[in-house]
Amino acid sequence: MEFRLIDRIRERTAQGREDVKLGIGDDAAVVAPPAGQELAIAIDTMVEGVHFPHGTAAADIGWKSLAVNLSDLAAMGASPAWALLALSLPVQRAEQLGAFIDGYADGFAQLAQPHRLALIGGDTTRGALTISVAVHGFVPPGKALTRSGARAGDVVLVTGTLGDAAAGLQLLRRGARVDEGDGRATYLIERLHRPTPRLSTGLALRDRASACIDVSDGLLADLGHICEESGLGAEIETELLPRSSMLMASFDEVSVRDFALAGGDDYELCFTVPAALVAEVQSDLARLGCGATRIGRMVEGAGVRVRDAQGQWLEAAQRGWDHFA
Amino acid sequence: MEFRLIDRIRERTAQGREDVKLGIGDDAAVVAPPAGQELAIAIDTMVEGVHFPHGTAAADIGWKSLAVNLSDLAAMGASPAWALLALSLPVQRAEQLGAFIDGYADGFAQLAQPHRLALIGGDTTRGALTISVAVHGFVPPGKALTRSGARAGDVVLVTGTLGDAAAGLQLLRRGARVDEGDGRATYLIERLHRPTPRLSTGLALRDRASACIDVSDGLLADLGHICEESGLGAEIETELLPRSSMLMASFDEVSVRDFALAGGDDYELCFTVPAALVAEVQSDLARLGCGATRIGRMVEGAGVRVRDAQGQWLEAAQRGWDHFA
Repeated sequence: MEFRLIDRIRERTAQGREDVKLGIGDDAAVVAPPAGQELAIAIDTMVEGVHFPHGTAAADIGWKSLAVNLSDLAAMGASPAWALLALSLPVQRAEQLGAFIDGYADGFAQLAQPHRLALIGGDTTRGALTISVAVHGFVPPGKALTRSGARAGDVVLVTGTLGDAAAGLQLLRRGARVDEGDGRATYLIERLHRPTPRLSTGLALRDRASACIDVSDGLLADLGHICEESGLGAEIETELLPRSSMLMASFDEVSVRDFALAGGDDYELCFTVPAALVAEVQSDLARLGCGATRIGRMVEGAGVRVRDAQGQWLEAAQRGWDHFA
Repeated sequence: MEFRLIDRIRERTAQGREDVKLGIGDDAAVVAPPAGQELAIAIDTMVEGVHFPHGTAAADIGWKSLAVNLSDLAAMGASPAWALLALSLPVQRAEQLGAFIDGYADGFAQLAQPHRLALIGGDTTRGALTISVAVHGFVPPGKALTRSGARAGDVVLVTGTLGDAAAGLQLLRRGARVDEGDGRATYLIERLHRPTPRLSTGLALRDRASACIDVSDGLLADLGHICEESGLGAEIETELLPRSSMLMASFDEVSVRDFALAGGDDYELCFTVPAALVAEVQSDLARLGCGATRIGRMVEGAGVRVRDAQGQWLEAAQRGWDHFA
């Protein structure tokens, strides 16, 4: 059965790549890495009821389980190539299992195909619904973006808008449905289920960003990682945080601010750039579609400090959610 | 918390490799693949209660979760280099969590270090106890061993002995304990918990084995994959199956035969070799320690047929265990 499930996924995610010498179906896949490139490799797990709500559509799970990993490659400035999938599924009737697998594979393929990412291997087991995806991307030697290169005075920027995914999750918990005809709920829930990894932005930041991370656990937590790894602090302004009109029309001001500061699952990139390069970088990123907004700067010290519209420093009690909380 | 757990694992599994440019602690690891080599990449998942019994020691889980993956590299003739770990853990008290993590990392490191395998990345989440490990190994271009190259007339061989792990699991189910002073039970249960990936054997089989697979789901099932992928059948003789004296002293003849034919979890290599090379290959493998035994041959047709000591063909009702059975 294992073999046939993976086979079914293989059919639906077929992607020809000359560097894949042996794909799904043997003890291991065999690939030929390109000469003169380094490999960026990431693995991320999604667990039902922890990383996505019970009842999430299989295709949304397929998309998102790949998206969160591609987002890691984006944050490194790497271009994606290959993925492996480890899928644990509860025992269920064959037709349910088949429908889940087909939906999962279709959602995965919708994101994989435009990026020419090949699914080269996998494993299916029975267990609680748990999905681990490992991805591999290429980056020129020494060019990977890291969390550790920020300098005091660098400007902090973030792509897209913040807080939409957390707001979408809140709406789902209140019983909202994506198809109920409310454009705002649809937008916010789609931002939760179908995040867009900022791959082209990541490539454009090579040689220009001094540090980069993707916003998976919330801006405060993730910018906090840049601070720790760079041995610096950061100061950001709440009024500068990019927020979608859909978010602002759906929640009160304090909720919007908290979603933008501490909500997870946005998968935008947060990065630092020397002040002299900011205008050029913003102009280039705007042409790539999602744009980037300056939200603060790196300073001597430690930790992230947040200033409100009145110039008051906020108590940053909410520091993203903890996977073991 | 996620960050600190992985950090704790990092400390206990430290392994210096010059080709690891960036290890655990960023959005992705960065490695420099060696020029002129292909990469073999595998991922395997272990779920508590499915792949190992409840109550299995953390260090045994750590060892085995890596061993089953290194066994996949062995079956490809690849030499191991890097691993990533995705670990889902039930919510529990901090000290329990810490003890599990430390034990897991120690068992993992015991197997990783002699092979100079570096743990380069990971993800920890809460959920049912589920461990996915992805491994990467090197193999010269075109030299990977596959399941598909066997030819009619090739001899079928297997390393080590078969059936020990399944017998060990049976003993555990009957309430046996590894420390109860019975040397046979200890041996068989250790074979279940601490399988030895046949890496040096895999390397020695390059250019000589026509097909190779590791015995994870049982000989009949796994040799069956070689048959399917090579478009052939296989005939094996029960009296030729290598069985340990510990196994033979612990169970009746029919149980021993069934464990050897259909028991999973041995992680020996089953491979095919042209008849003219068998003596040379057996002699070389004997020097590597585990040896290899000829158990039958590849024939025109399909499927695995089994002949008993009286020359009668057996009904192969037991075809390994099914992960979704």
